[in-house]
Amino acid sequence: MNATLNHQIVLAEVPLGTLGVHHFKSVTTTVPPLSPDQVLIRAIYAQVPPAARAVMTNTTAFPQAQPGEGIFTAVVGEVVEGPAAGPAAGTLVTCFAGWEDYSVVPVSQVRPVRALGPLHHHLGVLGHNGLAAYFGMLKVGRVEPGDTVVVSAAAGGVGHLAGQLARIAGARVIGITGSDDKNRTLEEELSFSATVNRRSATFASDLGAACADGANVFFDNVGGGVLEAMLPLMAAHGRVVCCGAVASYDTAQDAVLAPGPRGIPLLIVNNALRIEGFLTADFIPEWGNALDQLAAWTQEGQLKTITKVWDGLDAAPAALVAMLAGENIGQVVVRVGPDPT
Amino acid sequence: MNATLNHQIVLAEVPLGTLGVHHFKSVTTTVPPLSPDQVLIRAIYAQVPPAARAVMTNTTAFPQAQPGEGIFTAVVGEVVEGPAAGPAAGTLVTCFAGWEDYSVVPVSQVRPVRALGPLHHHLGVLGHNGLAAYFGMLKVGRVEPGDTVVVSAAAGGVGHLAGQLARIAGARVIGITGSDDKNRTLEEELSFSATVNRRSATFASDLGAACADGANVFFDNVGGGVLEAMLPLMAAHGRVVCCGAVASYDTAQDAVLAPGPRGIPLLIVNNALRIEGFLTADFIPEWGNALDQLAAWTQEGQLKTITKVWDGLDAAPAALVAMLAGENIGQVVVRVGPDPT
Repeated sequence: MNATLNHQIVLAEVPLGTLGVHHFKSVTTTVPPLSPDQVLIRAIYAQVPPAARAVMTNTTAFPQAQPGEGIFTAVVGEVVEGPAAGPAAGTLVTCFAGWEDYSVVPVSQVRPVRALGPLHHHLGVLGHNGLAAYFGMLKVGRVEPGDTVVVSAAAGGVGHLAGQLARIAGARVIGITGSDDKNRTLEEELSFSATVNRRSATFASDLGAACADGANVFFDNVGGGVLEAMLPLMAAHGRVVCCGAVASYDTAQDAVLAPGPRGIPLLIVNNALRIEGFLTADFIPEWGNALDQLAAWTQEGQLKTITKVWDGLDAAPAALVAMLAGENIGQVVVRVGPDPT
Repeated sequence: MNATLNHQIVLAEVPLGTLGVHHFKSVTTTVPPLSPDQVLIRAIYAQVPPAARAVMTNTTAFPQAQPGEGIFTAVVGEVVEGPAAGPAAGTLVTCFAGWEDYSVVPVSQVRPVRALGPLHHHLGVLGHNGLAAYFGMLKVGRVEPGDTVVVSAAAGGVGHLAGQLARIAGARVIGITGSDDKNRTLEEELSFSATVNRRSATFASDLGAACADGANVFFDNVGGGVLEAMLPLMAAHGRVVCCGAVASYDTAQDAVLAPGPRGIPLLIVNNALRIEGFLTADFIPEWGNALDQLAAWTQEGQLKTITKVWDGLDAAPAALVAMLAGENIGQVVVRVGPDPT
């Protein structure tokens, strides 16, 4: 194969404070030659997750991104070439890669996907968003029928799935978002039992009223004041699933940590609470079953996915900035190249 | 039985701020007649636990204590009289009761004890301290061979047992206390691997050096700055066992919660940490096995108990004040009446 030009979005500088599109730049490079254990992937859709903001200032499951480097997220694409033992050219796969047209990825980290519904579902309900919602709510949160479950950033890529999974498990589900529009969508389209607007002047009392008998599970994508408001509302033996911490991504760095929510550890001790983070990678042996379940609930219409598709790789920074500002409902992806399905 | 006079220590006023002996008063009442499901217990030893401070300003496993009421703690005593179906007069039992000579207790809440070593062991290694250390370290902390384990208030009633249980499980154990004397005792008499003095000017760097490769389990009896110092030192998938929150008992009330440690929830999310409270009552079906194990390790000499006995019921307030000021090593009890063993 001749040298292929590669369009990439990379970090221009480390963002301290609110993220802007000026923190990114577009570069054109040449795809390097493959080593025998690598696959060349042409990206079709790339994810735009809140975690992309975290990795710019923190060490997470990925190393902190440095200026000039790409932002690793989940990508669905097709194999261009690779070793004979790997997936054939044209195979649709997911992997983690930067925001770029072409990615060189170890063959061991590429997963073929089953064609089922829109291809970008493999970045959402049938990808890491779905797995995070599934394992976070069912295995870490251990939701039970009759539980009161609260989800923050409940209209987000993971949140809107997590809330529906709790409802499928028989729980009463309360969503927290920052907009009445989002809340209407959650109640009317996704069958949330109730919603609370965290930007309302009556947020604390609204939340207290919604959790009058205590919350058994809080699936938290936000942290900060939302977590602080929820802790005193947790019932005895309540579980707080720490899936994300969007409230601190703009200000936190490894060296400068924000003060934590009031009442830790006193409320944990007095009410025997469990507050737990997790990685989807902790559950790899169970991924197959989880994806089968998520696909079945999706096909039955019990589990609905909302997706916002931005067009073109260059839209990725603006898509991320808009999502962090609370301007999207559902999962956010960019269409990087032609979708053959 | 004729009316029996009862000497009791009750709360004189709700203590806001540092606890003093003036927050208590001694009263003499008359033992009320028993109902058919009640047992009259003569107290021999009563526990003086940090949780006695918590219950004065907070709802815990017990309701908040009100002025004029006793402070419920574990007591070991002998049955004076009770229903024919219950334990016979003279039987040695444990129960929860106030600091008082005589207690009227539901027969269902009285547990006969096996005579084994000093009677006050049933308030310590063979009582709720031992059960809290056992279930907290082994079942909540899930300590594994080779783990690095840190214990705060490591010379306290629960802490000095919890650290030894981690060592028995094959872990490297680091104790945090507020005194070099206590630390010497932990290292020389209880085989802790290392210790750190939280009152030292070099506490943070000492702790960091002791946990150079990260801590897998932090068994926390303190909260506050000690918890804040430990959180960034937790290894991926680390477990923080929240057994107590002594740092906040003097200032916290249900309505006025202290700010939490920095880095929550960001460190929980990024490092997949678990922070969990528990009740020994969560594990009632396993109590028998646990007590057998604790007794066996004690008899083998692997698990040593340090006990400070204060003499006479009237010493209980001073014993609690001294313990909260960090002036005791090991479990603290008061001898209420003659020990027949």
